Amino acid sequence: MSWRLQELAERVGVTLIGDPDCRIDSVASLQGARPGSVSFLASCRYRPYLKATLASAVILGPDDLEDCPVAALLSDNPYLAFARITTLLHPPQAASPGIHPSSVVHVGARIDPSACIGALTVIEAGAVIGADVFVGPGCVIGPECTVGEASKLIARVTLCNRAVLGRRVIVHPGAVIGSDGFGLAADDGVWVKIPQLGRAVIGDDVEIGANTTVDCGALEDTVLEEGVKLDNQIQIAHNVHIGAHTAIAGCVGIAGSARIGRHCTIAGAAGIEGHLEIADHVHVTGMSKVSKSITKRGTYTSGTPLEPNAQWLKNSVRFRKLDELARKVMALEKKLKG
Amino acid sequence: MSWRLQELAERVGVTLIGDPDCRIDSVASLQGARPGSVSFLASCRYRPYLKATLASAVILGPDDLEDCPVAALLSDNPYLAFARITTLLHPPQAASPGIHPSSVVHVGARIDPSACIGALTVIEAGAVIGADVFVGPGCVIGPECTVGEASKLIARVTLCNRAVLGRRVIVHPGAVIGSDGFGLAADDGVWVKIPQLGRAVIGDDVEIGANTTVDCGALEDTVLEEGVKLDNQIQIAHNVHIGAHTAIAGCVGIAGSARIGRHCTIAGAAGIEGHLEIADHVHVTGMSKVSKSITKRGTYTSGTPLEPNAQWLKNSVRFRKLDELARKVMALEKKLKG
Amino acid sequence: MSWRLQELAERVGVTLIGDPDCRIDSVASLQGARPGSVSFLASCRYRPYLKATLASAVILGPDDLEDCPVAALLSDNPYLAFARITTLLHPPQAASPGIHPSSVVHVGARIDPSACIGALTVIEAGAVIGADVFVGPGCVIGPECTVGEASKLIARVTLCNRAVLGRRVIVHPGAVIGSDGFGLAADDGVWVKIPQLGRAVIGDDVEIGANTTVDCGALEDTVLEEGVKLDNQIQIAHNVHIGAHTAIAGCVGIAGSARIGRHCTIAGAAGIEGHLEIADHVHVTGMSKVSKSITKRGTYTSGTPLEPNAQWLKNSVRFRKLDELARKVMALEKKLKG
Repeated sequence: MSWRLQELAERVGVTLIGDPDCRIDSVASLQGARPGSVSFLASCRYRPYLKATLASAVILGPDDLEDCPVAALLSDNPYLAFARITTLLHPPQAASPGIHPSSVVHVGARIDPSACIGALTVIEAGAVIGADVFVGPGCVIGPECTVGEASKLIARVTLCNRAVLGRRVIVHPGAVIGSDGFGLAADDGVWVKIPQLGRAVIGDDVEIGANTTVDCGALEDTVLEEGVKLDNQIQIAHNVHIGAHTAIAGCVGIAGSARIGRHCTIAGAAGIEGHLEIADHVHVTGMSKVSKSITKRGTYTSGTPLEPNAQWLKNSVRFRKLDELARKVMALEKKLKG
Repeated sequence: MSWRLQELAERVGVTLIGDPDCRIDSVASLQGARPGSVSFLASCRYRPYLKATLASAVILGPDDLEDCPVAALLSDNPYLAFARITTLLHPPQAASPGIHPSSVVHVGARIDPSACIGALTVIEAGAVIGADVFVGPGCVIGPECTVGEASKLIARVTLCNRAVLGRRVIVHPGAVIGSDGFGLAADDGVWVKIPQLGRAVIGDDVEIGANTTVDCGALEDTVLEEGVKLDNQIQIAHNVHIGAHTAIAGCVGIAGSARIGRHCTIAGAAGIEGHLEIADHVHVTGMSKVSKSITKRGTYTSGTPLEPNAQWLKNSVRFRKLDELARKVMALEKKLKG
Repeated sequence: MSWRLQELAERVGVTLIGDPDCRIDSVASLQGARPGSVSFLASCRYRPYLKATLASAVILGPDDLEDCPVAALLSDNPYLAFARITTLLHPPQAASPGIHPSSVVHVGARIDPSACIGALTVIEAGAVIGADVFVGPGCVIGPECTVGEASKLIARVTLCNRAVLGRRVIVHPGAVIGSDGFGLAADDGVWVKIPQLGRAVIGDDVEIGANTTVDCGALEDTVLEEGVKLDNQIQIAHNVHIGAHTAIAGCVGIAGSARIGRHCTIAGAAGIEGHLEIADHVHVTGMSKVSKSITKRGTYTSGTPLEPNAQWLKNSVRFRKLDELARKVMALEKKLKG
C-alpha cells in the first residue's frame, strides 16, 4: 500500500514542504530509511542522522527544517505525527468473524457474531464477548468475564473472577487479568486464605503487556481507568486504582489498595507500596520505591547511582554509619562555635 | 445463601453482641456495606468509617466495641474471623468430576476418578492426579508430575520435570513449576548448559500466584514447605528452600540455593541472593536486597527513601563521595583534638 | 545407563586418577552422592564435604587432589567437566517426529517432517518450523514466525510478530517472544499506540527462561546474538541488542534500545535504562540500576547494604540531607584552614 505524501500530510494534519506527489510506502528510522520511506526526528539524539537519510520525507519540528535534505512534514509533535502515519501505513488487520472449531465455548457464553475466536481457546459459562472482538489462540475466558467491543486479546490471555474489559482494550500474550489477590489472615503463624470477591475492571482503550498480572479486588474492584497503558511483566495487586491515561513501564509492582492518579508515568521496575495515594501528573523514575503518599505533581526518585563495585563497597559501608557521621559533624560544628 | 448471625458467630468462635436472628448474606468493607452485610474493622485506618456503616454486623476488637452502631462480633483477631466468615459465605465451588473431552490425557497418566480436568489441558505420561483435584483449562502437566489431593490449578498452569505438588495446593494462571534452573558452566566465554535433574517439591497448603515461576533443582530438589504463600510474578531459582508458613509478596526474586526460614515475610520486589540463609521470623521490607545471610529474627531494609528528583540528584552525587566525606570528618576531628 | 569411569574421563578430556573400570551411573552433589555417583568440587564452599563423600569419583582441581578419598577426575574447570559429564549421563531425549492430532496447524505453515509438534499447539499461517525442532504442548507460533533447526520450545511458549529463532534455541514455558513493544506517543495527555513493525531475532544457542518476555522492535529488530542466556521473568524491551554470550539472571528489566555488550553478566533483578550502551565484559551486580552508558569493562553496583530496619531508618533520613551534610563539612574545613 502506498500513499501520496500530500494525502498523508492532510490525514495527520501536518504541513508538507516538498513534492506532494511523492509516493510513501513505509516508515523507517532516519538511518534505516530508503526511498519511499517516511522517517521522523523527535529527539536531538538522532539529529546527526538527518542530513544523510535516504528517506523520501521526514517528519520534524520547525527548528530542524533547515537541515532537512528531503521533503519535510512539519509538526509540533513529530513523534505523534509519526505514530499516526505509521498506523495509516500499517492498519490493524481485521480478523474474520467466527469461532474456530477447535475452541471450547460453553453454551452459556454469549459471543457476538462479529467476534473472532481463535484456535484452542476456552470460553466459559456466562462470558460475554462483544462486537468485533478478537480473542486469539490459547486464551481462557473464565466464567462471567466480559470483553467489550473491538477489544483484542492477542494470544494465551487469561481472564478470571468475572473480569470486565472495556472497549478497544488490547491484551498481550501471557497476561492474567482477575486472578485472586494475595489476601491472607494470620492464625497463630498459619496463613488463612481470604476469598477474593471483587473483580478487575479495565477501562476503554487500556493496553496490557505480555505476562502482566492484574488481580481482582478483595471486596471492591481493582480498577484501571480509561487509557491506562501497562507494559510487560507488571504486577497490579488487589484493589489498586489507576487513574486515566497513566502509563507504567515494564516490571513495575503496585501493592494492594494503592491509588495512582491520572496522567502519571511510572518508569521501569519501580515499586509502589500498598494503601497510599499518588497525585495526578506524578512521574516516578526507574527502580524507585514509593513508600509514602505523593501529594504534589513532580518527578520522584530513590536509590543511589551506579558505581564501580570497588568504590561502591567503600561508600556503602559509610552509609551504614551515616547517622553517626552526621552526629560527628554536628559535634564539630558545636565545638567550633563554642 | 444467608446465615443467622448467631450461627456465623458460633462457627468462627466469636462473641456476638446484638440480635442473634439477624440474617447475613454478604461480606463488605465498612464503606461498601449494606443491610445484610457483615463487615470488619481490623486497622485503625478504617475506624472513621465505623459509625456510618450500613452493615448489619461488624467484626471488631474490644476497643472498638463502644463505637459500633450495629451488632458486633467480638474477636481478638478480627481479620482472621472475617476470613473465616467470608469462606463460610463464599464456599469454594466443587467441580464435577471427569475429564473434558477436549483435553489430551496420556494413557500412561493416572487420574483419580474424583478429579476434574478442564478443557484443552494436556496431561502427559506418568503424571498422577489425586483425588478431588481440579486442573483448570489450558494447563500442561508434564511427564511424571504429581498433583496431590484436593489441589486446584486454576488455569494455564504448567508443571514440568517431575514436579510434585502436595495436598490442597492452589496454583494461579500462568505459573510455571519445575522449569529448568539457570545452570551454566563457562567454557572459555561460551556458556554450556547443565542438565537440571532435581524436582520442584511443593508442600501441602501452598499457594502460588499468577505468572510465578519455581525452578526445579539442579541435583537435589527445590523445596517449598507446607503453608508457604507466594504472590504473583515471583521467581524462585533452583535449589531454593523455603520454610513452612513463609509468605512472599509479588515480584520477589530468590536466587539459587538460598535457604529461607519458617514464618518469614518478604515484601514486594525484594531480592535475595543465592547461597545464603535467612533465619526464621525474618521480615524483609519491599525492594530490599539481601546479599548476606541473616541470622537473627527481625526486620531488615536497604535502599534510600523517595525524594523529589532535583533533591535526589544533589544527594546521590554526594553518595558517590561518601567515603571521602567520612575521611574528611575524621581528619577534622583529629585536627580539633590535636 | 552406566559408563566406565575411564570412558567418561576421555570423553570430557579430564585426567583420571583411580580405577578406570569403576562404573558411573549418576551425578550428585558431594553430600548427596552414593556409590556409582560422580560428584564435583568447584567452590571452596563445598570443600568440607569432600572427605566424607560417598561418590565413586569426584571432579576437582589439582589443589584438592590430595584430600580426595575416591577416584579423582582432574580438571582446570571442574564445573565445566561436571556439566559435560552430566550431559553424557542425561542426554536430551529425542522426541518422535510428527504433529499431535489435537494441534491446529495452518495449511500455510511449513513444518519439517523431522519436527515434533506436541498436543494442543497452534501454528499459524506462514510459520516455518525447522528440522528436529520440538514444539511442546500448548504453544502458539504466530503468523510467519520461524523456528530454526533443533530448537526446543518446552511448553506454552508464544511467538508473535514474525519472530525468528535460530538453531538450538531453548525456550521455557510461559515465555513470550516478539510481543508488541511499549511504543506510545502523547497526544495532549492521551496515549496513541505506535504500531510495532520490527521483529525479535534470536541467535543460535540462545536459552530463554520461563515467563520471560522479549518484545519485537519498533522499526528495526530486537536482537539477541548467539549464545545469550536469559533466566526467568526477564523483560527485554523493543530494539534492545544483546551481544553474544551475555548471561542475564532472573527478573532483570532492560528498557528500549539499550545495547548490551558481549560476554556480560547481569545479576538478578538489575535494571537497565533505555538508549544506553554497555561495553563488553561488564558485570552488573544484583538489583543495581544502570542509568548511564558503561564504557569500561568491570563490575558495577548501586544501592545500599541491608541493615536492621531501625538502623536503616536513622541512616536513610540522613541520606535526604547528605548534600547539606557535605556542605557543612566543607564549611568546617574552611573555618579550620582560615
